[in-house]
Amino acid sequence: LAVLPRTYETQVCSIARTLEVMGDRWTMLIIRNVFLGMRRFDDFQSNLGIARNVLSDRLARLVDEGILERHPYQERPERFEYRLTDKGIDLWPVLVSLMKWGDRHLPEEAGPPTLIVHRGCGGEVDERFVCSECGEPVEARSSEARPGPGALRSWPSAVL
Amino acid sequence: LAVLPRTYETQVCSIARTLEVMGDRWTMLIIRNVFLGMRRFDDFQSNLGIARNVLSDRLARLVDEGILERHPYQERPERFEYRLTDKGIDLWPVLVSLMKWGDRHLPEEAGPPTLIVHRGCGGEVDERFVCSECGEPVEARSSEARPGPGALRSWPSAVL
Repeated sequence: LAVLPRTYETQVCSIARTLEVMGDRWTMLIIRNVFLGMRRFDDFQSNLGIARNVLSDRLARLVDEGILERHPYQERPERFEYRLTDKGIDLWPVLVSLMKWGDRHLPEEAGPPTLIVHRGCGGEVDERFVCSECGEPVEARSSEARPGPGALRSWPSAVL
Repeated sequence: LAVLPRTYETQVCSIARTLEVMGDRWTMLIIRNVFLGMRRFDDFQSNLGIARNVLSDRLARLVDEGILERHPYQERPERFEYRLTDKGIDLWPVLVSLMKWGDRHLPEEAGPPTLIVHRGCGGEVDERFVCSECGEPVEARSSEARPGPGALRSWPSAVL
């Protein structure tokens, strides 16, 4: 069997591939917003201040890539909301790592705007995704976002 | 004291801030390359196929942000190489998380192109940055990249 030549050798890297799918800044911010509970086009649009055609394009790509799913929530006119798939939820460590780096190296004077805590327990999730209270490993579904000491009163809409 | 209004409320978020600094795809790929041992302008340029002016701009911004440092390695003509600062090395969890997501959700048939292993021990680093052999927590300085089952023979230059 002939082996096809690789056109883009730089793509033989899982970092490059991941960035192809979600390496656009708007895309990452959309995903962040969905993690924080936002699901609707108009909410993304007003929150991010993004052009509607750019937002449509980014959402369509996230659906195509299987990171978001569309669910109808209204019939006339038909309206959809966006939810994370399991593949999308698996991006949680990427977002937490980006957040932790910003908390450490680009800090607010008042402290982190957002904390990721172990749901139920309330302990803060550390940089290895472990609960600093009970020591249990935490994942997306056992975590929740809370306003941190650097949060504005309007959190989470001001975080978003 | 008057409190200045925030111009960009969306910036009260450590994810948004981090993406402001390194949320450009070229920037992330440059940082990846430095982690893999690449240090010189011409090597970045030929590896990434990036326009020289764009590369210059991204490197200058990474130096301004304190993520990379310039070190002279030749006097006539003067030439510099780029090394990660401690702040830059702290981006390791972001890159590993991006890589692990790509390994899982955008896989090569042959397996991951690159493995991150515990230096000395050789155990693979898992998604929580723990060595799967000895169970010790691993960080950037105690890890190294190795060709994985999906690597091309030209690894690491083909990964880069």
